[in-house]
Amino acid sequence: MVTPPPTSTDETPGCVSRRIERWRRGAIDVVDDWVAEEHPVAMACNGVAFAVMMATPCDLEDFALGFALSEGLIAEPAQLLETEIRPLLEGTQLAMTLREDAHGAHLDPADDRLLPGRSGCGICGTRQLENAVRQPAPVRSDLRITHAALERALDALRRRQPMTALTGAVHAAGWASADGELVLVREDVGRHNALDKLVGALHRSGRDPAAGFAVVTSRASYEMASKTASAGIGLLAAISAPTALAIELARSAGLTLVGFARPGSHNIYTHPERLQA
Amino acid sequence: MVTPPPTSTDETPGCVSRRIERWRRGAIDVVDDWVAEEHPVAMACNGVAFAVMMATPCDLEDFALGFALSEGLIAEPAQLLETEIRPLLEGTQLAMTLREDAHGAHLDPADDRLLPGRSGCGICGTRQLENAVRQPAPVRSDLRITHAALERALDALRRRQPMTALTGAVHAAGWASADGELVLVREDVGRHNALDKLVGALHRSGRDPAAGFAVVTSRASYEMASKTASAGIGLLAAISAPTALAIELARSAGLTLVGFARPGSHNIYTHPERLQA
Repeated sequence: MVTPPPTSTDETPGCVSRRIERWRRGAIDVVDDWVAEEHPVAMACNGVAFAVMMATPCDLEDFALGFALSEGLIAEPAQLLETEIRPLLEGTQLAMTLREDAHGAHLDPADDRLLPGRSGCGICGTRQLENAVRQPAPVRSDLRITHAALERALDALRRRQPMTALTGAVHAAGWASADGELVLVREDVGRHNALDKLVGALHRSGRDPAAGFAVVTSRASYEMASKTASAGIGLLAAISAPTALAIELARSAGLTLVGFARPGSHNIYTHPERLQA
Repeated sequence: MVTPPPTSTDETPGCVSRRIERWRRGAIDVVDDWVAEEHPVAMACNGVAFAVMMATPCDLEDFALGFALSEGLIAEPAQLLETEIRPLLEGTQLAMTLREDAHGAHLDPADDRLLPGRSGCGICGTRQLENAVRQPAPVRSDLRITHAALERALDALRRRQPMTALTGAVHAAGWASADGELVLVREDVGRHNALDKLVGALHRSGRDPAAGFAVVTSRASYEMASKTASAGIGLLAAISAPTALAIELARSAGLTLVGFARPGSHNIYTHPERLQA
């Protein structure tokens, strides 16, 4: 049996159709199914190549801004003057023009110190141990939310993942206001990229990240906690488990870390004062 | 309520106990729970720092050998003469001594070209797009397995993940013989690391990777397919979804790629000839 192929449309960015064999208890069907794109995306600052990430090729302006902020290339959104999206043979280049006072405006292409602690998943590309773990500035958010608001945002996130619904292959990061209304969601094959896209989207829409909280469909690794704290967001709730290093970083950075966030239950690992009955 | 803390033992490497608040439908318990360690591990070749990965600090000799092979630092296991595990303040260094004829024996610490395509998750640390996607040599395995053998290995993998059972936070990679017997399993917070550890463990136990197949608890990204093919393993079965780039790489490298491998069903994306009724 051959099912007609789904067609890629503007409504399904980041998803493509592939013909596969589906085995079900001894019987094989030939069907077309949706799979997630995984695409090399290169970041360049004022003409200097900086890093390449494997990412889902959508919401790339959000990605550029969020990545530039979380990697310290810029200190504030206004320092990113322009992002040009250049489709190339091997992938996509995000050519960022940074203001002269931005740290990333003066990268020296011959400087090996560019790379430590600066790649898409935070520490890959780092060659020296002492650069591996960065400590973000303490979070100053005075956010207070109820457990019910957290549950409300998580419930909404489950229903707002169009790429995941099609492919089962991507992560989502969402941001909710203090009352639990899920305002923005971004998806990506990489959980760090989804969070960077979310942070970029928040700033591009003029919202203050500290006024709400983040919910993610992945585990909470060190890098997820670090990126959330760097963005000034006071609470990160992950559907899956945290790591010990994420807990340690969250404790010292003043971030409320919630894990195993599922309907009717969640675990609070650090700074429980932001969650109230 | 405070439950007595679990104690970290030699039987639970990579897992530590943390005190948490557990919220269940309005009630909060204070309990101690296991969480997975996430630890900076630095690779050095003949004294030259090469890369740092966030990893679970166990099976590190397996990790060094598998990483050195999959990253092309050595072409055969005998080129890795010794691995010294050095606990340092910021993490753990794996100081590898490579034979003089190994590619990795002559890294120039000032050479930026060390890094492209060479980090733990394959492309992070790469600055140039043209280095992002590597094409491994075609897999020459003439492996043939039955769907029943695949199901048998997957069923065994579900029951052999001690760290996951404790923490819910790690990935497992297993290798099964052609008849589906699960021979080796390695776990890590990083899916790429789990696969590198598995490949190292296979060689250290004197097994031929091409004689069996790999089963992993994660998604099948480009990098997972690439590492499997580089190791000469002919079939990779992932419990979750593949990406489009993983399918493309598997097709051109001659790798059989299976996804959504669950009890009673799986999808075959490339080279179905290795799977037989």
